[in-house]
Amino acid sequence: MSQTMRAAAKTQAAPGFELVEAPIPRPGAGEVLVKVRVSAICGTDVHIYQWDQWAQSRVQPPLIFGHEFCGDVVELGPGVKGVKEGDFVSVETHFTCGVCRFCRTGRAHICQNVQIVGVDRDGCFAEYVTVPYENLWVWDAEVNPEVAAIQDPYGNAVHTALVCDLVGASVLITGVGPIGLAAIPIVKRAGAKQVICSDVSSYRLDLAAKLGADLTVNPASQDLYAVVAEATKGRGVDVLLEMSGNEQAINAGFKCLANGGQASLLGIPSKPVNLDLASAIVFKGATVYGINGRKMFETWYQGQALLESGLDLTPLITHRLPLARLGEGLELMKSGQCGKIIIYPGE
Amino acid sequence: MSQTMRAAAKTQAAPGFELVEAPIPRPGAGEVLVKVRVSAICGTDVHIYQWDQWAQSRVQPPLIFGHEFCGDVVELGPGVKGVKEGDFVSVETHFTCGVCRFCRTGRAHICQNVQIVGVDRDGCFAEYVTVPYENLWVWDAEVNPEVAAIQDPYGNAVHTALVCDLVGASVLITGVGPIGLAAIPIVKRAGAKQVICSDVSSYRLDLAAKLGADLTVNPASQDLYAVVAEATKGRGVDVLLEMSGNEQAINAGFKCLANGGQASLLGIPSKPVNLDLASAIVFKGATVYGINGRKMFETWYQGQALLESGLDLTPLITHRLPLARLGEGLELMKSGQCGKIIIYPGE
Amino acid sequence: MSQTMRAAAKTQAAPGFELVEAPIPRPGAGEVLVKVRVSAICGTDVHIYQWDQWAQSRVQPPLIFGHEFCGDVVELGPGVKGVKEGDFVSVETHFTCGVCRFCRTGRAHICQNVQIVGVDRDGCFAEYVTVPYENLWVWDAEVNPEVAAIQDPYGNAVHTALVCDLVGASVLITGVGPIGLAAIPIVKRAGAKQVICSDVSSYRLDLAAKLGADLTVNPASQDLYAVVAEATKGRGVDVLLEMSGNEQAINAGFKCLANGGQASLLGIPSKPVNLDLASAIVFKGATVYGINGRKMFETWYQGQALLESGLDLTPLITHRLPLARLGEGLELMKSGQCGKIIIYPGE
Amino acid sequence: MSQTMRAAAKTQAAPGFELVEAPIPRPGAGEVLVKVRVSAICGTDVHIYQWDQWAQSRVQPPLIFGHEFCGDVVELGPGVKGVKEGDFVSVETHFTCGVCRFCRTGRAHICQNVQIVGVDRDGCFAEYVTVPYENLWVWDAEVNPEVAAIQDPYGNAVHTALVCDLVGASVLITGVGPIGLAAIPIVKRAGAKQVICSDVSSYRLDLAAKLGADLTVNPASQDLYAVVAEATKGRGVDVLLEMSGNEQAINAGFKCLANGGQASLLGIPSKPVNLDLASAIVFKGATVYGINGRKMFETWYQGQALLESGLDLTPLITHRLPLARLGEGLELMKSGQCGKIIIYPGE
Repeated sequence: MSQTMRAAAKTQAAPGFELVEAPIPRPGAGEVLVKVRVSAICGTDVHIYQWDQWAQSRVQPPLIFGHEFCGDVVELGPGVKGVKEGDFVSVETHFTCGVCRFCRTGRAHICQNVQIVGVDRDGCFAEYVTVPYENLWVWDAEVNPEVAAIQDPYGNAVHTALVCDLVGASVLITGVGPIGLAAIPIVKRAGAKQVICSDVSSYRLDLAAKLGADLTVNPASQDLYAVVAEATKGRGVDVLLEMSGNEQAINAGFKCLANGGQASLLGIPSKPVNLDLASAIVFKGATVYGINGRKMFETWYQGQALLESGLDLTPLITHRLPLARLGEGLELMKSGQCGKIIIYPGE
Repeated sequence: MSQTMRAAAKTQAAPGFELVEAPIPRPGAGEVLVKVRVSAICGTDVHIYQWDQWAQSRVQPPLIFGHEFCGDVVELGPGVKGVKEGDFVSVETHFTCGVCRFCRTGRAHICQNVQIVGVDRDGCFAEYVTVPYENLWVWDAEVNPEVAAIQDPYGNAVHTALVCDLVGASVLITGVGPIGLAAIPIVKRAGAKQVICSDVSSYRLDLAAKLGADLTVNPASQDLYAVVAEATKGRGVDVLLEMSGNEQAINAGFKCLANGGQASLLGIPSKPVNLDLASAIVFKGATVYGINGRKMFETWYQGQALLESGLDLTPLITHRLPLARLGEGLELMKSGQCGKIIIYPGE
Repeated sequence: MSQTMRAAAKTQAAPGFELVEAPIPRPGAGEVLVKVRVSAICGTDVHIYQWDQWAQSRVQPPLIFGHEFCGDVVELGPGVKGVKEGDFVSVETHFTCGVCRFCRTGRAHICQNVQIVGVDRDGCFAEYVTVPYENLWVWDAEVNPEVAAIQDPYGNAVHTALVCDLVGASVLITGVGPIGLAAIPIVKRAGAKQVICSDVSSYRLDLAAKLGADLTVNPASQDLYAVVAEATKGRGVDVLLEMSGNEQAINAGFKCLANGGQASLLGIPSKPVNLDLASAIVFKGATVYGINGRKMFETWYQGQALLESGLDLTPLITHRLPLARLGEGLELMKSGQCGKIIIYPGE
Repeated sequence: MSQTMRAAAKTQAAPGFELVEAPIPRPGAGEVLVKVRVSAICGTDVHIYQWDQWAQSRVQPPLIFGHEFCGDVVELGPGVKGVKEGDFVSVETHFTCGVCRFCRTGRAHICQNVQIVGVDRDGCFAEYVTVPYENLWVWDAEVNPEVAAIQDPYGNAVHTALVCDLVGASVLITGVGPIGLAAIPIVKRAGAKQVICSDVSSYRLDLAAKLGADLTVNPASQDLYAVVAEATKGRGVDVLLEMSGNEQAINAGFKCLANGGQASLLGIPSKPVNLDLASAIVFKGATVYGINGRKMFETWYQGQALLESGLDLTPLITHRLPLARLGEGLELMKSGQCGKIIIYPGE
């Protein structure tokens, strides 16, 4: 094994990134070294690339970014359990403290002291990365490595969808970026009767149809409420999966929700939202779930079981690039003219 | 029995009301005639009295208003089941259709076709009122009639509180009008560890302390977040009961909520609210319940069981007036210098 | 309309039944008259036919039996809501009191005062039957009348299955009589990863495979535990649906259940069962649900939504007979060499 | 610190135990050394003492037994997090693997590879014991050390009770050994309306009354069903906490359960139980929970919160002995004429 590796790093507190030759990291106590097979670009990576306000407040260069990936375990630090060299793994990107109240009650996804790989410590736009063994998901079944690389957004979709009662349900997904798209086959496989998707991007609505949406609506040109009312005989949807973080979409989504409905919120508005709480939630007797990350590791078990029973995520993947062309991928993500973009760090 | 009765009616589409002599109503099929023993004033009555925008859009004079009451069954219409003349009853004020999806699945509290007594048909600021038998709550245990008269707001509090996990919980109640006040002993009896109440009225904070609040906070002069942080060792409350409908209180309440917390919303904002959804709900992985009315009749069984096991609502009742002085009671409610105001229609 | 109708009745407290000409019943207050289009035979009908101990203790001749059916509303009694002449309906067979605690809290399926049509009052092995309007399920979507006739056992299967968490689950169904068979496509549609069925009848195991079972096991010749262990990598099934009422099957089923698993019990043992509670339930931290009837009407809404989204029950139906040949059908049911047997009362 | 310590050990595969001078253990990686302040005797210790069939199959001498205790952290092994020397701790006695599916989904209490301190490795009838840091419960509030020593059985009671809906409930506890006794104030504090306790020991029924039982019943001389029927107006109890493991008590308990009731089973029958599943569970639509250990660490947080809000366990403690008199304590436990017996290893 050579001593250095290729990596994409934020080297300065400014927009952009650099391709660098970095030292291969060593696993500490409780850590393993993973040779990255496949990575993928997340919206968060675009924030870091663009160096927006959030990135400025959170990220401290120099940093190798990227957090969606799979790879092969090549070295074990001391005290590692449940994994061995050669295992093919995906990685839960939330590195949690293990000792706070949330970690100790099966709710590590809301750990008070979380660190995110590729945000708070070196990530996966590189040939190697170190990871605590507790965060590994060892695949014991065959899996497409490109699918193994996108378990973070897929897991977000699994978590968001499965907190709701889906059997026989009419479901509205507002916002079909990669996570919203991933939610479509999940919701169908979990017994939903119909899935309606709204987005302002016709590219993504086309992808939504390919992934199984029964109806797709562009609110820029169509009346979402009218479509939902007709599709649900005037009652509204039983379940809203909010994946956009957009104020208009949030209000439109709640307007479409039936009395007694469930809304699961994953989209992150960049600022406070004006919401008619009385009609959106109170009078309807609605239940609203805020969703953060993936339940560790219930979400992973559920997600793997769905994959094993035939759920197909591959239509979600639209582009494949070597690490050297990461910049192209980031620009493509900004444009929205893509599903999931795969990065091969070894090429 | 004479043919007419005293009643307080909205006779015109204008502020105010009139004391009238009205015909005693006759029970139709499935209805009973109740002789009102004790009534109480609700905030909704004040809206009708003041003839605000909501009242103008909903209420059609002439109407006898008032909906919180108890009384004695004096006559049965045809087809009545489960009740007999002489029974002492409280009344669920939501008259539901019985045939919509919600009514047919144990969720009549969100019936799509609900009518409210004293709002959509003649109510209880009168000596007699007719009620569908399905809406009667026959007391099989001894109960203070003044307590029996306020089962509607008490039930709201029971419903709002008991959707949350309360055993060992730290609870924040934002807004201690009569319903928020009623929630205090409920929450304590259900195992809460501590109850913190916030309100801008010192009169009501005093009542809150009397009903068992561990801490009372006036956000006009105190830093609610700091009080909560200290009382919860920095973690925030497990449960938020939002009873104010006030934008500032809602935002302050969510700020005080711990990760993974539960918020139960009963307060009705009069217009859309600016809310930082990302930090209030999404990142926290919070669960939010919209609360409308009382679960029929789970809430009633729970409420009665709590009363039977010693829960004392009487400190909530601060004034008692005959029907002739209803106007005084309505003005007092406007001032906020009261708890629950009891009206005796027979005096 | 003539004054009499064909019907199959228990005329004596003895085995067997008679084909009779009976007066067409009249709907009372709150009732409708239904012209039966399609009926089906239930195991309960066989008990009544054979006049076993249970039947002797419960049924009071003369009685027209039969309770699974659909038909057309031809006459409304006074006070009927939500249905009109000409509606095509299925019927919830549990006629409940409406006033007990269970009826009043959305749990009418465990009403303390339930009457069952065709058991406690005249049923559907006849051209006409009267039914309380509250028990009607009006079809607003197209449905195969033979499927509409078997909503009672189908609903049992829906109720039994959907109390469990099925997404991604491994499921074992012990006993694939008609209800166990109906559970197979439900469980698959609700996201189960694999469904294993056990029964001692190879006829029914063949039907199970046709309805979608992934594995079928005859415990008379195969080691159920070994099959389950291999199919679940040694962990056991997440969900057990017990549909047999058989002591050996119950013990075998619990042995196959994973730690933390859910067991839903619909099968009715005819006498007390010897069960190793410690290893079956306590140490495993299992959750067990007793299932009685159908949730009114949540189960019906769920069942209809599944049918509308493509669930196919028709492979379950193996025989069709006119009312005149009901005796053949009852004998066939005794033999177990059948799925669901349809009866046409009008032929 | 000296090199040896006093301890009570099973030195041979035979009834009895020996007081020995043993080497003080050293904490390994991830472990801490705890100086035991207070221990307590569990029924399991009696099994080991008597060397019954279960003990013979599980325990491998030589072994220091005892598992209920609290103490002071005196030394940290490498890799320990969240605890420091001098911390006062109780100990979760289930040492779990951390990598099985259950451990990874917040359900470590049903870990497939659990080891129990004092059963599978050296325990707390000694001056010192080593414990994985993950199993420590550091007290951040003041607590009575004798109460801190009995968190294992108290936690069993908390877990058993709090899986049920207790607000306003009528509760029956069958079997008031120490865990059943501990459940009484928990259930009351969590909002139960009334608590009925049954046991064949009048000594323990007296303790039950002292801990807050509303009614105590000795089924040897009283008709439990009749008492429950009268106390619940014929409906039965909403919640059954089965703490006896006794076949008769289990059947009697289920007979007393209302339709739709919840039963939580902690008692461990020593052999299969004859149970009328149809009437006990199926027809009633009951829900049954098997309870194993304590939820890690939800149960601990709940338990501590209840203690902080005033729950008093001290009436449960009836005897206090030095380690040298452990044999007396074990004999007393056999007799049943005791509540909880405290052992002071340092005396």
